[in-house]
Amino acid sequence: MSAQSLAFTDLVALLEQVFIRHGTSPEVAAILAHNCASAERDGAHSHGVFRIPGYVSTLDSGWVDGAALPVVEDVAAGFVRVDAGNGFAQPALAAARPLLVEKARSAGIAVLAIRNSHHFAALWPDVEPFADEGLVALSVVNSMTCVVPHGAHRPLFGTNPIAFAAPCADGMPIVFDLATSAIAHGDVQIAARKGERVPPGTGVDSLGQPTEDPKAILEGGALLPFGGHKGSALSMMVELLAAALTGGNFSFEFDWSNHPGAKTPWTGQLLIVIDPAKSAGQDFAKRSQELVRQMHASGLKRLPGERRHRARAKSEKEGIVIDREELERLQMLAHE
Amino acid sequence: MSAQSLAFTDLVALLEQVFIRHGTSPEVAAILAHNCASAERDGAHSHGVFRIPGYVSTLDSGWVDGAALPVVEDVAAGFVRVDAGNGFAQPALAAARPLLVEKARSAGIAVLAIRNSHHFAALWPDVEPFADEGLVALSVVNSMTCVVPHGAHRPLFGTNPIAFAAPCADGMPIVFDLATSAIAHGDVQIAARKGERVPPGTGVDSLGQPTEDPKAILEGGALLPFGGHKGSALSMMVELLAAALTGGNFSFEFDWSNHPGAKTPWTGQLLIVIDPAKSAGQDFAKRSQELVRQMHASGLKRLPGERRHRARAKSEKEGIVIDREELERLQMLAHE
Repeated sequence: MSAQSLAFTDLVALLEQVFIRHGTSPEVAAILAHNCASAERDGAHSHGVFRIPGYVSTLDSGWVDGAALPVVEDVAAGFVRVDAGNGFAQPALAAARPLLVEKARSAGIAVLAIRNSHHFAALWPDVEPFADEGLVALSVVNSMTCVVPHGAHRPLFGTNPIAFAAPCADGMPIVFDLATSAIAHGDVQIAARKGERVPPGTGVDSLGQPTEDPKAILEGGALLPFGGHKGSALSMMVELLAAALTGGNFSFEFDWSNHPGAKTPWTGQLLIVIDPAKSAGQDFAKRSQELVRQMHASGLKRLPGERRHRARAKSEKEGIVIDREELERLQMLAHE
Repeated sequence: MSAQSLAFTDLVALLEQVFIRHGTSPEVAAILAHNCASAERDGAHSHGVFRIPGYVSTLDSGWVDGAALPVVEDVAAGFVRVDAGNGFAQPALAAARPLLVEKARSAGIAVLAIRNSHHFAALWPDVEPFADEGLVALSVVNSMTCVVPHGAHRPLFGTNPIAFAAPCADGMPIVFDLATSAIAHGDVQIAARKGERVPPGTGVDSLGQPTEDPKAILEGGALLPFGGHKGSALSMMVELLAAALTGGNFSFEFDWSNHPGAKTPWTGQLLIVIDPAKSAGQDFAKRSQELVRQMHASGLKRLPGERRHRARAKSEKEGIVIDREELERLQMLAHE
């Protein structure tokens, strides 16, 4: 398959056109396009341009408000709330971000509770920029019923990822983003498209039987939590933090049956940001650098986030490589 | 083996005697005895009276200051620090607790960073009382090098548990406490004592080969993280939060070789407390009750924390059952 190389800014511009063409405001388009192009640039393909058809069909279905104006509420010295207005979570985060950072630096810690929001992207782009500013950030978002709690018979939780970012002296931040399901939903979709199997222990079919067939998981089956009862407990925690604590929907509470084509879960998101300048002892970034040094000395070849950072460096040098066919589809979506 | 049944208060009183006899202050003895007896009462045997010989040998070795006076520092609207003064973490938490709760209620969220501390107990007793007061609490503590990071050759991380508690209307709080290692260190010790195997995938021997022999794990071997690279990433996060962010030691940084008998890791602990009264929408405890209802409806027989709460109810009715031999050992330690 032939491919083409694009500069990051060109991919962002193309994706902005796609979003605006399908009903988002220019502000929302800029944020989502930057997010999606960043994932593609960093080699996180399941959250890159692969997601665009899902965004488009969702916008076309009227399920999400692509022009929503988030309403930021200053609740307390360390607590910010945002009503995303049935729009995407990323513009809500962007609207609340300056206040959140100000509170974190002043109070030492601050929480952002986003509700009435749709999150259809990777979670690490939400936390990594805080680490770039010297802050530690943790975020959780719940999604849509597709994971069977450990010991249960039928799905209830979403893939409910947890993302974390921390600054590191003389290097990229330490960043991870992990689904509490055994596999990310996007990776199941990609495996189905490529005709590949998924690893054992990741999912069940519509009868609740273990399967390695991604299509059987997607067609009436479900995912399992990672790490048995522990991953399941963490997934439950994500429901409580991202939905109960924000005022958003649990993963099992929304009904999109009247919006065929809708793909984006209508839930909530929580972010906790801590200012390590308030810590005792040595500079935090120097301490995390020491941990990284020791992790390498223990034989670790690759740290969490490192693959993305390497892919980013490559993309910045050589451009972002996209199949010609995929690119043509995007160009069509930008103009149809 | 014959056994005896003790009232909770009698077990606390006996354990207090043991602690005081081995050099703690009465205040520290009261806190540790209550903590240890609570674990025993709740059926969490690996953190119950099973731990007492380890506490005693550590105190006798001079490794920990059983009479340390924690120093609480009010750093910012949402940030409290404590220097535990080379004492136990629980008295440090107790000293800072009123200020932490006040800040969480006022700012909406607050963090407690404990450093220069020894944590040798279960973690859920640290978070559950916050949920009893209607607050949401999350805590992490790092421990001592015994876990091989996923993809590494030798151990670096501690068992690094994560504990979480949230209020639930008309019921016990939702509480979990999970080691980020595939098995808790105390459970390996108990398996070794009983001559049982540990589940596959939990540990390696001194040559780095997988083993199900708990003695091989304890004698030069190591544990693995739960859930592969994901549990490993969470364990790394615990090192950053509990050590780098508090000013405490990483799990690999302390050297107790001059204190034979020392068992308690000299590290740090982080607690984050959130006031859900600041949330939008329905009452948080009602929302968590709805999640519990749905978890039961999905086929879950037992929720996280439920086994402990059932054991507690039984102990409150019938007393705490302890082997006569174990009880005699405790009585000896209280007077020797």
